[in-house]
Amino acid sequence: MTKSQALQSNLDVDYVISYRFTKTDKAKAAAQFEKLCHALANVGLQTEARNGDNHSVLLFVRVASDEHLFGEVYRSRVRDWMHGVRSAAPDKETRAALEAEPLYEAERLRIIYQLITNPVYEGGAGITPKEGEWENVESIFALHDHAYNKDWIKKWSSSYFLKTEDLDDIRNRLGEKIAFYFAFTQSYFTFLIPAAGFGTFAWLFFGHFSPIYGLFSALWCIIFTEYWKHQEGDLSVRWGVKGVSRIDTKRRNFQHEKTVTDPVTGEQVGFFPAQKRYQRQLLQIPFAIAATLMLGTVIATCFGIEVFISEVYNGPLKSALVFIPTGILTTVNPILNTILTQFATRLTKFENYETASAFEYALTQKIFVLNFIMSYLGIFLTAFVYVPFGTVIVPYLDVFNVAVRPFAEDEKQLHLHTTTGTSSWAINPDRLRKQVIYFTVTAQVVNLGMELIVPYLKRRGFAKYKEIQSERAAKNGGAAPSAAANDPPEDAAFLERVRKEAELDVYDVTADLREMVVQFGYLSLFSVVWPLTAVSFLVNNWIELRADAMKICVEMQRPIPWRADTIGPWLDSLSFLTWLGSLTTSALVYMFYGDGNGPDGKPSNIQLWALLLTVFFSEHIFILVRTAVRIAVSKMDSPGQQKERRERFLIRKQFFEENLSKLQKYPTLTDGGEEITRKSLEEDARQSSLRETTPETRFWSRQRGWRESASVGKTLIERAEIGASPERKKEL
Amino acid sequence: MTKSQALQSNLDVDYVISYRFTKTDKAKAAAQFEKLCHALANVGLQTEARNGDNHSVLLFVRVASDEHLFGEVYRSRVRDWMHGVRSAAPDKETRAALEAEPLYEAERLRIIYQLITNPVYEGGAGITPKEGEWENVESIFALHDHAYNKDWIKKWSSSYFLKTEDLDDIRNRLGEKIAFYFAFTQSYFTFLIPAAGFGTFAWLFFGHFSPIYGLFSALWCIIFTEYWKHQEGDLSVRWGVKGVSRIDTKRRNFQHEKTVTDPVTGEQVGFFPAQKRYQRQLLQIPFAIAATLMLGTVIATCFGIEVFISEVYNGPLKSALVFIPTGILTTVNPILNTILTQFATRLTKFENYETASAFEYALTQKIFVLNFIMSYLGIFLTAFVYVPFGTVIVPYLDVFNVAVRPFAEDEKQLHLHTTTGTSSWAINPDRLRKQVIYFTVTAQVVNLGMELIVPYLKRRGFAKYKEIQSERAAKNGGAAPSAAANDPPEDAAFLERVRKEAELDVYDVTADLREMVVQFGYLSLFSVVWPLTAVSFLVNNWIELRADAMKICVEMQRPIPWRADTIGPWLDSLSFLTWLGSLTTSALVYMFYGDGNGPDGKPSNIQLWALLLTVFFSEHIFILVRTAVRIAVSKMDSPGQQKERRERFLIRKQFFEENLSKLQKYPTLTDGGEEITRKSLEEDARQSSLRETTPETRFWSRQRGWRESASVGKTLIERAEIGASPERKKEL
Repeated sequence: MTKSQALQSNLDVDYVISYRFTKTDKAKAAAQFEKLCHALANVGLQTEARNGDNHSVLLFVRVASDEHLFGEVYRSRVRDWMHGVRSAAPDKETRAALEAEPLYEAERLRIIYQLITNPVYEGGAGITPKEGEWENVESIFALHDHAYNKDWIKKWSSSYFLKTEDLDDIRNRLGEKIAFYFAFTQSYFTFLIPAAGFGTFAWLFFGHFSPIYGLFSALWCIIFTEYWKHQEGDLSVRWGVKGVSRIDTKRRNFQHEKTVTDPVTGEQVGFFPAQKRYQRQLLQIPFAIAATLMLGTVIATCFGIEVFISEVYNGPLKSALVFIPTGILTTVNPILNTILTQFATRLTKFENYETASAFEYALTQKIFVLNFIMSYLGIFLTAFVYVPFGTVIVPYLDVFNVAVRPFAEDEKQLHLHTTTGTSSWAINPDRLRKQVIYFTVTAQVVNLGMELIVPYLKRRGFAKYKEIQSERAAKNGGAAPSAAANDPPEDAAFLERVRKEAELDVYDVTADLREMVVQFGYLSLFSVVWPLTAVSFLVNNWIELRADAMKICVEMQRPIPWRADTIGPWLDSLSFLTWLGSLTTSALVYMFYGDGNGPDGKPSNIQLWALLLTVFFSEHIFILVRTAVRIAVSKMDSPGQQKERRERFLIRKQFFEENLSKLQKYPTLTDGGEEITRKSLEEDARQSSLRETTPETRFWSRQRGWRESASVGKTLIERAEIGASPERKKEL
Repeated sequence: MTKSQALQSNLDVDYVISYRFTKTDKAKAAAQFEKLCHALANVGLQTEARNGDNHSVLLFVRVASDEHLFGEVYRSRVRDWMHGVRSAAPDKETRAALEAEPLYEAERLRIIYQLITNPVYEGGAGITPKEGEWENVESIFALHDHAYNKDWIKKWSSSYFLKTEDLDDIRNRLGEKIAFYFAFTQSYFTFLIPAAGFGTFAWLFFGHFSPIYGLFSALWCIIFTEYWKHQEGDLSVRWGVKGVSRIDTKRRNFQHEKTVTDPVTGEQVGFFPAQKRYQRQLLQIPFAIAATLMLGTVIATCFGIEVFISEVYNGPLKSALVFIPTGILTTVNPILNTILTQFATRLTKFENYETASAFEYALTQKIFVLNFIMSYLGIFLTAFVYVPFGTVIVPYLDVFNVAVRPFAEDEKQLHLHTTTGTSSWAINPDRLRKQVIYFTVTAQVVNLGMELIVPYLKRRGFAKYKEIQSERAAKNGGAAPSAAANDPPEDAAFLERVRKEAELDVYDVTADLREMVVQFGYLSLFSVVWPLTAVSFLVNNWIELRADAMKICVEMQRPIPWRADTIGPWLDSLSFLTWLGSLTTSALVYMFYGDGNGPDGKPSNIQLWALLLTVFFSEHIFILVRTAVRIAVSKMDSPGQQKERRERFLIRKQFFEENLSKLQKYPTLTDGGEEITRKSLEEDARQSSLRETTPETRFWSRQRGWRESASVGKTLIERAEIGASPERKKEL
């Protein structure tokens, strides 16, 4: 098997389990490995063990036979139907059900993954990578489909727009969760085109801080957010996953305080008092304050130093020293971020959520707060502190002269020039724009580069390190046998490839999603400062979409194809940013529109009541417009919704036909109409004297059949007419 | 049959159709009457015709046999299940299904009413009272159950609180829609108790416009609104109607522009372009403006005149003249209201909604706007125009001197006293409070009286008029025969009672609901002016609840028991009023708190920025608190929700058991474990040379069974350990 062949075929392998035993003693590791094989065999999985790199065994797993899988698929589909994800119950004949609706690759992989990882009482093998007794199971991953990946990259890099079919393709291969990320980014990209067009126009003709652009930007954000919600629903129907977020999976780490009988199912379930969780959630407040203070202090300090150096300091090395704060930020911020994110994760774990979705939601909220501070605080400081209060604050920035004192030649360089009085210093009107440009262009490019280049370098460096080490080991004589030493020659190329894939990182789609949401934030909050923001993002995202595809294919393990029917908690973040944008945009427009210079650092020039009135009105107009857009969007019909309704209709129709046809048509009433003859009256009288009569039967037996009622009514009508006419005539 | 007996029994009558033929000529009327009887007989209804008052025939209707009804009930229940209202499909055996879950009275009456009124293609008789060919059908009503009514009134008037069982009772008799009104009012009443308590406390100790009371009031409104939403959901589950609002009934008057093929059902359906409806909806804007202007002008003029007379005018008859504006308001407003409501109805019809619920929603919105202006504009004028801008505006009120000029003795009496300069006139600080007290006490009492007494007087007057007329007719010789002339003696008392019930008005629950929502508005918007508001409402609503029950029993025809799962569009009005309350309360507190006098008519005394800041912050705190309350309430478990979940769980369990038990347990894997002997290896080699081998089969055939994988893995682990150890030692 040549190298290119090895890339073409996955040899029917469904999953590879990387079992690493560096830390455990060998007897224990071997025993646990046996247990692993047994557990997998128990759920109908076939295994093959091969040697892995650096004290690891690669265990290849595949489904022993289709029959094994069918049961699982059927169970999964029935569960979906029960939760309302599927509108029709699957056919009761398993094989027929699967033939009617064949598995797609992502569904197959998801079900097998669940088979491996689900707890034993839910019918899985209960393998939990890196946790508990399965600590040695380093990872469980599927093998890349290199032929498909190559086609994918090729196709995307040669087309301007992605079609829905392209997204379908991703969904079939990588699952709905990742497909939703690409769908969102693509949708965002499409919306950026008009924004970029209008932005350019505004930049050319409307001048700075144009209220027209501000209105456009707010409207654009609203329409995009609402439209995406609509499209999300549509896609979830198209992909048959609408409602999967309702299927709650219990968190394995949920710790119950006591066991209670579930009032619904009657089962014994773990219980954790909500009261106690609320108390723990209160810790979020000190956490948020601490995080804001820590990140805020770092950012504000750097901001202060930067302002001081660039606008007060006048000594040597000024052009170099001005980069000090950026340097501090780029080193301290990621560290702080990592620490705070870890802390947030621990806090969320401590809050002890019962379901995975509640956990994810709580964690995302915290991470959004951290990102919000890190991404936007700097600009907020410039816009709402530096510019309006500049002349008041800058003199106090002298405290930062410690940072550059060593470089200064004399004291004068460290203080404001007072040659012409205190007014010599003036606000730098370009600072705000430059900062926005930095965040929306430079930072984006750097980010993109980091995303692609850092993992590549890491990978290369790691390979180099291993090479050097094995060379050294070989020189020292005690050469550890290469992992490939005992490979059967025909599998060697394939196993080499698998070993490489085992070393790769795990792809985390939420990180990419977060990046997009943060980017959207710049647009909604600050694009009025520099209307070309959308142009920069348009270019960036065209590349981003392709770079992410590349990243998944080359630099990451093949991701587990999870399902989703939404981009999840980030949707709330989008709405929040849109809303906040209506406040900041109107405030910025109010403060800076006009002469193009805006406030000059003297707070007295800003009419607080006018600013508040502007913000107040713009916010309420925003809410009104959003409601209108929501209604309009909700009225939009879409293929997905039609499909859903059609399915429901057909099921309903079928049920009606099946069941109501069994109902006998009720007997038609005797068509009345026997003439009221003397004979029939006598007959009636005789009948009624024979039967025991009640007032009811007497009342209802006076007229038989509708014809009799009609004729009695007719008589009444005619008689009434006679009686009434003389009176009527009199009244006329 | 005595009179009291006639009240006890309804003689098995399900519905009475009042057929009036005053306007039509008798031949046509008789023909149409025959058609009516035939149509009813066709759907399995038995009929009896009797003479009615004043050129009308009473047609008594009952279901011919239970078999006829069973089919209808079953169909209705299947439809409910299809729309998700019922979680389980009804038993396929009709009789068994009905025995398992017997009909309640309201359900029976609703189904029969639908049988009479539903269009023919939906299986009904297609009788549409007062419309089209059924113009002569004046009304279709069920007969009161007087025994039950008597018990009901007695029970309620002797108990302080209503229990859920009392509400269940109403639901069983009068249907869910009316039951929801009573549930809402009862829930509101219960919430008023703490509000009244705290209000009294605040009134006694906190002084005027207390911010503490303001906070309490806003919080109370939020909790009540959110709690009601929760309770509504709970009751809808309890009553098995959750989701009925999703069952859309087509409006009969919907006019389609063209017929298109429904993409969902494939049926031909009427189509009206949404574009065109949007255009028509735009008419709402001029309508709202016109209504605001008309009502606003009337209210503002009366307000101006009143202020002029009471605070400027100083001539004779002052104490009498001061009632002029109230007189104008009480005459002009109801007239304007009636005209505008009619106009709103016509506008809504013109908007041509497809479903009854969309129509109702659109109409309710318009009616709410009208009510909002009429109820609150006066107080708004006092609080936000008269008090802050009084000294600026009052001099201009001189224009109103035309209204009292005839009564004045000299010019001086028509102008502000300028003896001590312009400052002689001062804001009347009591005006606002007096106005609020007027609306929350006097107006409520008057309203209650009107609701009970006016219909009573109307009924008595009408009876008197008829009596006089028949006496006059008798004197003139041409006496019209009394309607009762030909009654069979034993039915006479019963028929007399039915004729009386036929004359009664139709009960409209939305009017009562609107009254409650408007009342809630005073509490949320203005109760900070007079904290005893809740006390007044508490007393009022205790009586209101009983008076409404009385009204339904005595003064109205028995209402058709419609279903509902919510109080409908009024819920939005509640939320709106709660939100607006957060604005007005904070503004009122800001403006008037402190010395207890508030602004003195000079707008310069109010800091606009501070007012705006107060409102801005209070609104956002409101939104935050509402979100928190929403989350807290959504976490509350309730019997209804538990019931729903339990039902769903049981169905799920049953389905799983039924279907998954059929799935054969997949074959267990051959338990591996054959020792790898020379023989078995040779056997394998032979086998593989016999078969055509692919890389896949070769790869997967190296290890047979999990035991072999495990042992290979074990070997790998042991070997790796040996290879690695020297290197490790070196590294240490």
